[in-house]
Amino acid sequence: MRNLIAEFIDQVLPRTHTRPEIQHLFDLMRDYPVRGGKMLRSQLLMMVARAFGGPAERALPLAAGLEMFQNWVLIHDDIEDDSEDRRGQPALHRLHGIPLALNAGDALHVYMWQVVHQSGVPGAFEEFLNTIHRTAEGQHVDLSWVVNGSWDLSEADYLQMVHLKTAYYTVVAPFRLGMLAAGLTPDPEIEAAGLKLGAAFQIRDDVLNLIGDAADYGKEIAGDLLEGKRTLVLLHWLAQASPEQKAFFLKVMSLPRDQKQAADIQQILQWLHDSGSIQHAQHMADAEAAEGLRLIRNVLSRASDQKTADQILHLLEQLATRMV
Amino acid sequence: MRNLIAEFIDQVLPRTHTRPEIQHLFDLMRDYPVRGGKMLRSQLLMMVARAFGGPAERALPLAAGLEMFQNWVLIHDDIEDDSEDRRGQPALHRLHGIPLALNAGDALHVYMWQVVHQSGVPGAFEEFLNTIHRTAEGQHVDLSWVVNGSWDLSEADYLQMVHLKTAYYTVVAPFRLGMLAAGLTPDPEIEAAGLKLGAAFQIRDDVLNLIGDAADYGKEIAGDLLEGKRTLVLLHWLAQASPEQKAFFLKVMSLPRDQKQAADIQQILQWLHDSGSIQHAQHMADAEAAEGLRLIRNVLSRASDQKTADQILHLLEQLATRMV
Repeated sequence: MRNLIAEFIDQVLPRTHTRPEIQHLFDLMRDYPVRGGKMLRSQLLMMVARAFGGPAERALPLAAGLEMFQNWVLIHDDIEDDSEDRRGQPALHRLHGIPLALNAGDALHVYMWQVVHQSGVPGAFEEFLNTIHRTAEGQHVDLSWVVNGSWDLSEADYLQMVHLKTAYYTVVAPFRLGMLAAGLTPDPEIEAAGLKLGAAFQIRDDVLNLIGDAADYGKEIAGDLLEGKRTLVLLHWLAQASPEQKAFFLKVMSLPRDQKQAADIQQILQWLHDSGSIQHAQHMADAEAAEGLRLIRNVLSRASDQKTADQILHLLEQLATRMV
Repeated sequence: MRNLIAEFIDQVLPRTHTRPEIQHLFDLMRDYPVRGGKMLRSQLLMMVARAFGGPAERALPLAAGLEMFQNWVLIHDDIEDDSEDRRGQPALHRLHGIPLALNAGDALHVYMWQVVHQSGVPGAFEEFLNTIHRTAEGQHVDLSWVVNGSWDLSEADYLQMVHLKTAYYTVVAPFRLGMLAAGLTPDPEIEAAGLKLGAAFQIRDDVLNLIGDAADYGKEIAGDLLEGKRTLVLLHWLAQASPEQKAFFLKVMSLPRDQKQAADIQQILQWLHDSGSIQHAQHMADAEAAEGLRLIRNVLSRASDQKTADQILHLLEQLATRMV
């Protein structure tokens, strides 16, 4: 299924141009797609369509569009966060500079709308609009906390940001688009289920960023700390940290990325481990995942192909626990 | 007509949100549109539709979409060029930083496709796709010359870049979209005419950047030199500069913007004036404009409303000479 989606994207994107500079743009647009992500969201979309009796050829352009969305948004996110690595290689702007990477992201963005428009699946265009509106809002919330140095945030603030930034495009959209590809009206329960599963996914991702293995994870470990990302782990720890710890933390966070000292980051990581905040986040992810899975089982109980429905549940379980 | 288009955009963009961070995103998305550009391209589109008997309400969403394109692309261009000013105020990323400005440009981009999709004008979506593909290609060519320090470029290289980067969205697209709004197949002569008029517009803009008045122009004078932009004036001058002048120029151009000295920029400006290269560029713009106007008169001779056709010719004459 990954091959099918990758081949579709390969066919859609322009390949060669006689002018070498434009050939270079085409190469940049293909870079992230060719690096080969896990394609979880687009595969989920294909499976949901199949479970509800939708033909693969109707779901495929939407899956490719969602994957192209993921790719252009990652190019831009990596600039916004000044991330170092993506899928085990340097981020695009670290290879080619911000101007060319930014423009290549825009170019890929336009090809995404081309694919969605040409799919002709009723309601799909509106679903992409809604999904990307929410994602951009969540990204703005997340970035503005970093820009403004906001740390006085509740778990509810974090969850609202994560719902917008991650959950819509990771779970809600693949489910809704899959049902649209099957010619059905998306189930109203999808939204609540998807927000919970998406939150579980992101909380697990945050934890993995702190304690994961770099080779498996594909991004630098503790990169979120270097980038000053607000995570559930940090917010929980801050609420119970000593004034001295908090002052130390805020001082480190106020420094630009390249002035943050490895020893200081290690100190903070140690406190996060000792405080039980990582465990708290994992418990919260478990609870969100359990409730999300309960709700999505209702949705999937109405699918015509129950064998595929079971595979979807299995994928969602893995996704919500970040085992994939 | 400007008010109509501005009101349409005002209605389309989200205005208020209970979450202050998202409210802030909405404010950023509205910033460039509210600064009020000249809206030349969107007004041209409305006039072409009227000249060919198209109803204003069919042309209006396309005009708004083209204006929204101009606005998101300017946000991103200003980041890519690290421009200081836009429409007499600081560029968006200079007010809010690159991350928030980049994301606000993406958010506006998505609303543009929403407007184009909802217009329902057959062929308009494909016209936007084609236009933005070409613009992104032209932008990549232009940026990659700066990144790679390429100065060994011909006038033909410059014209090809300008056709892609400027002429499609400035002249070709407004004409073609205007005819589509009138329910007509766009005239095949539009492309050749629009490329010539667009080139004339950009060459004049380059000249204005060197010799214009900052208050009228809305951008910093000689900003192109600070940004290292390739222009017809510079390429013509380089082809006849002495080895000493060329070495001096390349040394200044190799410096980052904030290390370029005002006195050095003044020296280069003086050489450009003395060499006749500014005059050469103006002659070339005149020739491109004359040929473009000749071709577009053919197209407009088939319009049902010849009074509006005359107004369009007048606007295009002003546009090609940058009197507007």
